[in-house]
Amino acid sequence: MLSFVVGKGNLREVRKPLPALRPGWALIRVRMAGICNTDVEILRGYHQFRGVPGHEFVGEVVEIAGVASPVREKWIGQRVAGEINVACSAYGHKPVCDFCQRGLETHCARRTVLGIVALDGAFAEFLALPLANLHRLPPEVSDEKAVFVEPLAAACEVLEQVRIQEFPNAAVLGDGKLAQLVGLVLQAAGSRVTLYGKHDEKMKLARREGIATKKVRGDARDLERLKKSYRLVVEATGSPSGWTLAQQMTEPRGTLVLKSTFHGAAPVETWPIVVKEITVVGSRCGPFRRAIALLKSGKVDPAPLISARFQMQDAAKAIQYAQRRGVMKVILRTASG
Amino acid sequence: MLSFVVGKGNLREVRKPLPALRPGWALIRVRMAGICNTDVEILRGYHQFRGVPGHEFVGEVVEIAGVASPVREKWIGQRVAGEINVACSAYGHKPVCDFCQRGLETHCARRTVLGIVALDGAFAEFLALPLANLHRLPPEVSDEKAVFVEPLAAACEVLEQVRIQEFPNAAVLGDGKLAQLVGLVLQAAGSRVTLYGKHDEKMKLARREGIATKKVRGDARDLERLKKSYRLVVEATGSPSGWTLAQQMTEPRGTLVLKSTFHGAAPVETWPIVVKEITVVGSRCGPFRRAIALLKSGKVDPAPLISARFQMQDAAKAIQYAQRRGVMKVILRTASG
Repeated sequence: MLSFVVGKGNLREVRKPLPALRPGWALIRVRMAGICNTDVEILRGYHQFRGVPGHEFVGEVVEIAGVASPVREKWIGQRVAGEINVACSAYGHKPVCDFCQRGLETHCARRTVLGIVALDGAFAEFLALPLANLHRLPPEVSDEKAVFVEPLAAACEVLEQVRIQEFPNAAVLGDGKLAQLVGLVLQAAGSRVTLYGKHDEKMKLARREGIATKKVRGDARDLERLKKSYRLVVEATGSPSGWTLAQQMTEPRGTLVLKSTFHGAAPVETWPIVVKEITVVGSRCGPFRRAIALLKSGKVDPAPLISARFQMQDAAKAIQYAQRRGVMKVILRTASG
Repeated sequence: MLSFVVGKGNLREVRKPLPALRPGWALIRVRMAGICNTDVEILRGYHQFRGVPGHEFVGEVVEIAGVASPVREKWIGQRVAGEINVACSAYGHKPVCDFCQRGLETHCARRTVLGIVALDGAFAEFLALPLANLHRLPPEVSDEKAVFVEPLAAACEVLEQVRIQEFPNAAVLGDGKLAQLVGLVLQAAGSRVTLYGKHDEKMKLARREGIATKKVRGDARDLERLKKSYRLVVEATGSPSGWTLAQQMTEPRGTLVLKSTFHGAAPVETWPIVVKEITVVGSRCGPFRRAIALLKSGKVDPAPLISARFQMQDAAKAIQYAQRRGVMKVILRTASG
C-alpha cells in the first residue's frame, strides 16, 4: 500500500505491506487524514519516530481479526474515527499495567500512539487500530468535519478537567488550530471566550465564529498593554514563550490549562504560580464521544479551519504547505475519501 | 523601639517610634520571631522591601485602637500568632476589592504583607496588625512551637488543596524548613512520606520524626537513579532546579504542589505536564487555625528544627548565621520572650 514515512525533513513515499492484525484489531481504509503540528515536529525528530505519521483520520473498517461474526457485522463497512493511544491490553499483556487497571488507558505505561509512538499512522492507504479505539461516525458528520474529531476531542478534554460553568469568561492564548478548537468548544459550553493571537488572518477566522480576539506582539510588554486577567486561561500557543504570558494573565487562585506540547525549554519564573496559588492543568487527549456529539449537534463546525486539501499521494507537498505562514488545517484525501 | 531594617546585605539596627494604630489594629509586643528564607531573599532585594522584615512571630497584644471595651478585654494581654496578609478592608477601603468580596483575602489586590510588602514586620520590639489577623495561642503551645505557626500553616495549605486521603504515599522534594514541615503535616494526615534531599544532616532530622529520606545529587541523572514516581509530589526545594525533577517524579494524572517562591527563572520543559496531564498546584499561605490545632494536639512538633536562638538585638548576627550551611530555623527572642 501507499505510505509515507519520516524522511530527511520531509515525508518519504514508500510501499508497505498491509499492517498485520492482532486479535481484536481492525484494518481501516483511510478516507481522509489531517496534518497536525505534531506531525511537523515528528519530521524534526520529535519522539524519534521513524514510521508512518498521521493521527487524525476518518476511515472505513475493512477487516477485523479474531472476533465473532456478530461483532464483524456490526463494524465492517462502518465509517469511523479512532482514538490514538493503544493500551497494553490490546497487545495481549497480562496483567495490564497499573494505569490501565485504574482506567487511565490514555496514560498506559506501555502504550503506543498512532503515528507518534511505535505505531504506523494515517498518512497511508490503510492503518490498524484495536476495535476498542474506534468510534462510529453518524451520517450528519461529514468527512471534513470528522477529520477533526481527534483534535476536537483534545479541546473537549478541557471540559473534563475544569467545571466550565464556574468560568463565564475565558482567555485562550494562541490562534492556531488547537487554540481555535478550544475557543469553539468553550464557547459552545457557554463561556465568553477571548482569543489572544499574533496573526490577523487566523484571528479573523475566530471572529467569524463569534469569538472575541486581541492581538499580542509576543514581547515582554504584552501584559502591560493587555492589563487583563482571567480566572481561566488556556495556553495553546504551541510555543514555550506562551507560558509566561499565560501565567501572568491568570488571576490569583485561577486555573491555567496547558495544551501546548512544543518541545524545548523556556526560562520560566515559577514563583507567580506559588504566590497567586494558580492551578496549572496539563491537558492532552480527550473524549471522542463528546467531540462527535458536538459535531453532530452542529454547535461546533471546524470545517472553516481547513486551508487546503491534497490527495494522499501528495502528502509530502501537503506537509510542506502546512508549514507556510497563515496556513491552518491541511487535509489529505485518498481515492476512497 | 529597637527595630531592624533592610541594609546593605544585612539587617541594620534603627530606633523607630511605635507603629501608629488604625482603627481595629492591635499593637503587639514581639516575644519571639523566626527567620525564614524569604527574609534572606529580602536582604538580597526581593520585593524591593525596605522596612522591617520578619513575618513569623509570637507576641502579646498590648494596645488596640478604636474598639469597644469588651473586645479590648478579650484581647489585651493575649499571646497571639498573626496572619501576614493584610486585606484592603483593614485600611478602610470601601468597597473592598473583588478578591476580598470573594473571601480570598490572602489574595487581596491591595494587600500588604507583614515584613514582606509595605508593612513593618517582626524583627522589632513591637509590630501592628489588624485584630482580624490574630489568633490566640493555647497554653499547650509554647513560644518555641508557636513561632512555627505561620510556616506550619503554609505547610497545612497543601491539605486544603489536595484530598490527602487519596494519596497514601507522597514525595516531598527538599530538606529545608518548609519541606520538613510539609513532611510532618502530610505524615500527621496519614500519608507515608519520602523526603528527597541533598543534606545528610537535615535529612537525619526528618528520619528522627519517622519520615523516610532519599538522597538526590541535583544532577540530570537523579531521575534515572531514583526510578520512582508518585501521585503526589510537593516541591519545596527553594530552588528553581527542583521543578524539573519534581515534574519528572510526578505520575501521569498526578498532582505536583509547588511551595518554592525562589525568584529566578529556570529553563523548564512544559510538555511533560501536558503529556502526563499533571495538575500543578501553587501553594502559599495557609490556615492558622489548623496549624495551631496540630501543635496543640502534639501530632506535629517543629521545635527540633530550631538550630539556634539569638537575642533580638543580635538579629543581624542571627540572619548571617541562618545562611550557614546546614542551619535550619533560627529564632530571635526579645526581653519579653
